[in-house]
Amino acid sequence: MIILENGTITSPRGFSAAGATAGIKQSGKPDIALVVADGDCTAAGVFTRNQVAAAPVLVSRETLRANPAGIRAVVANAGNANACTGKQGLLAARRMQEMTADQIGARPDQILVLSTGVIGVQLPLDKVAEGVASAAAVLSPAGGDAAARAIMTTDTRDKQLAVQIELAGGPVTIGGMAKGSGMIHPDMATMLGVVTTDASISGGALQECLSEATDLSFNRISVDGDTSTNDTVFLLASGAAAQVASDDDLQAFGDALAFVCTQLAQMIVRDGEGATRFVHVHVTGAPDTQAAHTVAQTIATSPLVKTAIAGGDPNWGRILAAAGRAGIALDQDQLSLWVRPLDGAALQLVEAGMPLRFQESDAASLFALPEFVIDLDLGLGTAETTVWTCDLTHDYVTINADYRT
Amino acid sequence: MIILENGTITSPRGFSAAGATAGIKQSGKPDIALVVADGDCTAAGVFTRNQVAAAPVLVSRETLRANPAGIRAVVANAGNANACTGKQGLLAARRMQEMTADQIGARPDQILVLSTGVIGVQLPLDKVAEGVASAAAVLSPAGGDAAARAIMTTDTRDKQLAVQIELAGGPVTIGGMAKGSGMIHPDMATMLGVVTTDASISGGALQECLSEATDLSFNRISVDGDTSTNDTVFLLASGAAAQVASDDDLQAFGDALAFVCTQLAQMIVRDGEGATRFVHVHVTGAPDTQAAHTVAQTIATSPLVKTAIAGGDPNWGRILAAAGRAGIALDQDQLSLWVRPLDGAALQLVEAGMPLRFQESDAASLFALPEFVIDLDLGLGTAETTVWTCDLTHDYVTINADYRT
Repeated sequence: MIILENGTITSPRGFSAAGATAGIKQSGKPDIALVVADGDCTAAGVFTRNQVAAAPVLVSRETLRANPAGIRAVVANAGNANACTGKQGLLAARRMQEMTADQIGARPDQILVLSTGVIGVQLPLDKVAEGVASAAAVLSPAGGDAAARAIMTTDTRDKQLAVQIELAGGPVTIGGMAKGSGMIHPDMATMLGVVTTDASISGGALQECLSEATDLSFNRISVDGDTSTNDTVFLLASGAAAQVASDDDLQAFGDALAFVCTQLAQMIVRDGEGATRFVHVHVTGAPDTQAAHTVAQTIATSPLVKTAIAGGDPNWGRILAAAGRAGIALDQDQLSLWVRPLDGAALQLVEAGMPLRFQESDAASLFALPEFVIDLDLGLGTAETTVWTCDLTHDYVTINADYRT
Repeated sequence: MIILENGTITSPRGFSAAGATAGIKQSGKPDIALVVADGDCTAAGVFTRNQVAAAPVLVSRETLRANPAGIRAVVANAGNANACTGKQGLLAARRMQEMTADQIGARPDQILVLSTGVIGVQLPLDKVAEGVASAAAVLSPAGGDAAARAIMTTDTRDKQLAVQIELAGGPVTIGGMAKGSGMIHPDMATMLGVVTTDASISGGALQECLSEATDLSFNRISVDGDTSTNDTVFLLASGAAAQVASDDDLQAFGDALAFVCTQLAQMIVRDGEGATRFVHVHVTGAPDTQAAHTVAQTIATSPLVKTAIAGGDPNWGRILAAAGRAGIALDQDQLSLWVRPLDGAALQLVEAGMPLRFQESDAASLFALPEFVIDLDLGLGTAETTVWTCDLTHDYVTINADYRT
């Protein structure tokens, strides 16, 4: 697998993209993104499980179900989530489909819709229409970068990459872009992802690959995918390059897709609102993977753990306390805990429930690293998982106490 | 029911108390509290359901089970939670029982133990011993106030009150003290409560009253009682006053106890770490009480909701989004939302899923109140509940990023 330099969602063959400024964001930054395929794509999607799902989620889910092999484009706006907007919001999401279809010469049921931004405000459709027209006018196979920048909200960096793999039938490229940085789970602000590929692949295999890749990536930074009103990841396959023809091809494609999604997910955590540290929470010795995941997520979402990390304070008792309230049956006399740099020796803090003697300054220097690993062994089984989190800082409060103004 | 002026845990007859400074807290503030009954008490307790339970929780639970009608005292220390301390911690908690028993002339199995403070550090038993001796030397029926101050950690105010009710057989007093202020659920820093009464009441009735009162009070500021490693509430009945003899008496006693616990719980939220606003989250129209509770708690613990409140930002979409991820089946087209002052007209924001037109400044002025109510109707049934929460401010991060230093 090759990671392409300056890879974007238009690195795979068969896609154009563009960004435009419609004035939906108060900042005046780009806020409309278009990703358009030359022809019909096979497509797959994963959506938030939040019971309060935004209009674009409801509309895109329906569109994808009705037309999984005939998708032509993704239209996205930032600055307004079109969530909690009732029937008017549903009509607005459908109008976005129509506008986009008109601009690119397709049918509305070939357009997937994404929105992110403030909740509870009706979408300014006139601005969206202008933005979609402007974006359509500059669609280009070099437009991936502009699209990735147009979906940002509190993100400080765009998030995109592309990789190339060799299948039996020839090279295939996968490109992806994402946005999201509200990284206090389980309240993550909207996470959006669009992944493109020029592989030729069946709709069933595509959906399976995307679901699996999401479990290994975006769901390791959110709680069970059950997060914001708008969270969505789309995968479009143009079929312009080689076919995923064998099990080996499928394995290679799935691995590469998981890599792209994992990179995007980690970019989101690293760009967490106010984040200064990136932490791998690695739970081992669990009775099963779900239990490992639940414990790791509870630690990764604990405000007390995250503020301690912000302070570089090796207050490891909070890690065990968070594990203890995860709702999983634990034996506290079996818990062992280490902290370590990503590539370096681990410092053991707890052995089978007993705190060890160690130099406080050694632990503090590890907790002060920009990136480190927490290893917690539950001593109950052989299942394990890793989730990624960041610290909870003053800047998080600043960003979120006054998001709308 | 009368609320006593300057009421404390020694307002009920038959109790003495004291506070002392043992040097466990780095601040040099009082850190040992004793509550001692003149004779054997009937006692009840509720404990954390955290799987990583602190040594004092394990020891006190055992003691209470073995000797529910012969409790003489509660000994508490602040500054060290004696949690995640392994077998050595269990021995230390038992030593605290022995020390206290020696000082007051009782048996170790008559002593309940509480600890709060840093997790994962062995208890400095020599300091505890000195502190217990000092406290025992100044035990007094006027010592309730000193005890309440000695259990504080990041609390900025002591939390105590007492009420008097009239039973058929005469007046009965209930006094209580509590500590706790780490008010980001579900990660609440340790909440401790001690309630005393001079009522004469059976152990079974006492436990039932305490469990019910806890559900109506402390469990409305935490998630299912499943919080820190040390959370504990004790209730001791000296029997020095009237007997709880009839169902009417029991009702009056239970109501008064629930009042005392609710006041203490609200004091904890009002003193939340860094808190500037107190918010009642009132959920109605739920299919059952548990569903109402789950939705209310998810809103009350949402960092995005709490930071919006800190900023006085009426970002009501975050309230619906939090409700949507509570894990309860909702119909977003049935959700209605209001915000109102405690005693004043409500401003409706959402009607059956549709956002209403209202003056942003009207909503903002309500969200900026020091105390207000969020009413969310799920439109699904008739069950309801209220939980209490506070905002998430910069000061919360400051307090918790550097708790141990």
